Amino acid sequence: MKIVIDAMGGDNAPVATVGGAVEAVKSYNTNIILTGNEPMIKKQLEKYDYVKEKIEIIHCNEEITNEDKPVSAIRKKKDSSMVKALELVKEKKADAVVSAGNTGALLAGGLLVLGRIKGIDRPALAPVYPTVRGASVLIDGGANPDCKPRNFLEFGIMGSIYAKEVLGIKNPSVCIINIGMEEEKGNEVVKEAYRLCKTGPFDFKGNMEARDIPGGYADVMICDGFTGNVILKLTEGLADSIFKLLKEEFVKNTFRKMGALLLKSGLGDLKKRFDYTEHGGAPFLGVKGVLIKAHGSSDAKAIKNAVRQGIKFIENNVLDNITGKLSV
Amino acid sequence: MKIVIDAMGGDNAPVATVGGAVEAVKSYNTNIILTGNEPMIKKQLEKYDYVKEKIEIIHCNEEITNEDKPVSAIRKKKDSSMVKALELVKEKKADAVVSAGNTGALLAGGLLVLGRIKGIDRPALAPVYPTVRGASVLIDGGANPDCKPRNFLEFGIMGSIYAKEVLGIKNPSVCIINIGMEEEKGNEVVKEAYRLCKTGPFDFKGNMEARDIPGGYADVMICDGFTGNVILKLTEGLADSIFKLLKEEFVKNTFRKMGALLLKSGLGDLKKRFDYTEHGGAPFLGVKGVLIKAHGSSDAKAIKNAVRQGIKFIENNVLDNITGKLSV
Repeated sequence: MKIVIDAMGGDNAPVATVGGAVEAVKSYNTNIILTGNEPMIKKQLEKYDYVKEKIEIIHCNEEITNEDKPVSAIRKKKDSSMVKALELVKEKKADAVVSAGNTGALLAGGLLVLGRIKGIDRPALAPVYPTVRGASVLIDGGANPDCKPRNFLEFGIMGSIYAKEVLGIKNPSVCIINIGMEEEKGNEVVKEAYRLCKTGPFDFKGNMEARDIPGGYADVMICDGFTGNVILKLTEGLADSIFKLLKEEFVKNTFRKMGALLLKSGLGDLKKRFDYTEHGGAPFLGVKGVLIKAHGSSDAKAIKNAVRQGIKFIENNVLDNITGKLSV
Repeated sequence: MKIVIDAMGGDNAPVATVGGAVEAVKSYNTNIILTGNEPMIKKQLEKYDYVKEKIEIIHCNEEITNEDKPVSAIRKKKDSSMVKALELVKEKKADAVVSAGNTGALLAGGLLVLGRIKGIDRPALAPVYPTVRGASVLIDGGANPDCKPRNFLEFGIMGSIYAKEVLGIKNPSVCIINIGMEEEKGNEVVKEAYRLCKTGPFDFKGNMEARDIPGGYADVMICDGFTGNVILKLTEGLADSIFKLLKEEFVKNTFRKMGALLLKSGLGDLKKRFDYTEHGGAPFLGVKGVLIKAHGSSDAKAIKNAVRQGIKFIENNVLDNITGKLSV
């Protein structure tokens, strides 16, 4: 198996991407291709001891930044680490691509370079959302700010296959995130989506409220990309704020400081449960190829976990499963 | 000043509503009218010592429940505590109404009984969102699942007047909650809303991401009612889950138990910051009358705080200010 990592993508590239590549080689015995600036990548690789033939470098002269406009960046920067990485998958020279780069550009690249699976109108991001019960899939996590009702049906199909094959959830339940439980609740798109999902080829449990997201009410939570993005970012911001405020409260006097010391490991365990790096990245489901979007601020561990996700994706034939389900 | 409380509205009615009425009389020296089942209300009132002439009861034979369909409930249950309360404001026999009852019915009642302020296409719920910096106004908190771009402009106008007059924020900043900071980000409605808000009669700061909501990035956060409802409920659910998980971590061994004991007051202080009952209810802005929606699970303290909100609303002429701003 061969995974290509966009070595120049993300806030901590190429330190994190190269470090993640080495960790992945060691943990999963996989082959890695790194696309990007060869001298910079080599300089990082020198820091590590690893099986040399497991990591290949493909040099690129360009780089897509967060300031680039997605579609034009993909069209114009043909010699960028991101476009090269996608082309390697397209040409079947690699089995999956991992990138922590510009999200918009990566999604545009997925569509323009890899193309959509037949029957899928809108590919979508499917991040794993950590819950009290374990983990759920949120789809769409931000690829499509405007959705049609039929997109929800596609999200349900793709999300449930992913939850089953990659997260190992048997017969995953699917819910629409809505502002009430009843069928007639919500905006016009969501109401029509409900009617379509009732006959969808998955275990549709109806609507759920945002209050029940952290509790793990459904294994697959479907929504438009605007709502999904708000959910992910609010979760991040709120967890940060609560831990920050906890810290403030915990140093207000000596008793509390002592208490906080005794609880340090407990807080650490809890923070870990909300740590996105544990879950790797979010696959872009619905494109013809395995494409994992890692968080922009990924460290080496997060990149390694994104590679693991790609491997699981391939081993469990998620793409074939989606294609098969759509042709029924 | 006279505030009418829908005594039968909410999960804890009439215990909480009557208790809140008595507390409000004592704290704010206001006059209260309670609409609802007179024998039940009287039985609750007997528990308290208060100035009798400050609380009046208007008996009603009906009650609107959470199972009722909003519009038909308002149309058919003319002798319900909610409709009666709204009519008292309409007839200028009371200055404001507080209800913890069926949200949909209350919003429908606001529109059907009180009517819209001229120039307002869609009245909206404007709850206070507790932040690290203090408090912001979120509008729309759930009244309008589908919005047009011009509604965002109205939300900005009403929200900034409310933030200024009731929360006492000088020159409040207004942001659109979006999936990116740049002007061209978001769904179609939000993009057009941005263009309209740029020339709005308020301090428009552009877009903000959901990640920055808990930090208090803007004083007034505008969004459609679907997004607003998701934000409020996710915040509630996530805070609950984190505190629950903290508790679990904190009893895992004796050291942690001791630590938790030392931190008890700190955790209590923090929980209080996320406690909606501290902020009372959410006004329904844009209707011709002062209408405060209290949380369905309000206790007496929350009802009292909702009354305080109504009083501030009246004292600061929020309605006249909104009407004035719209006729410019």
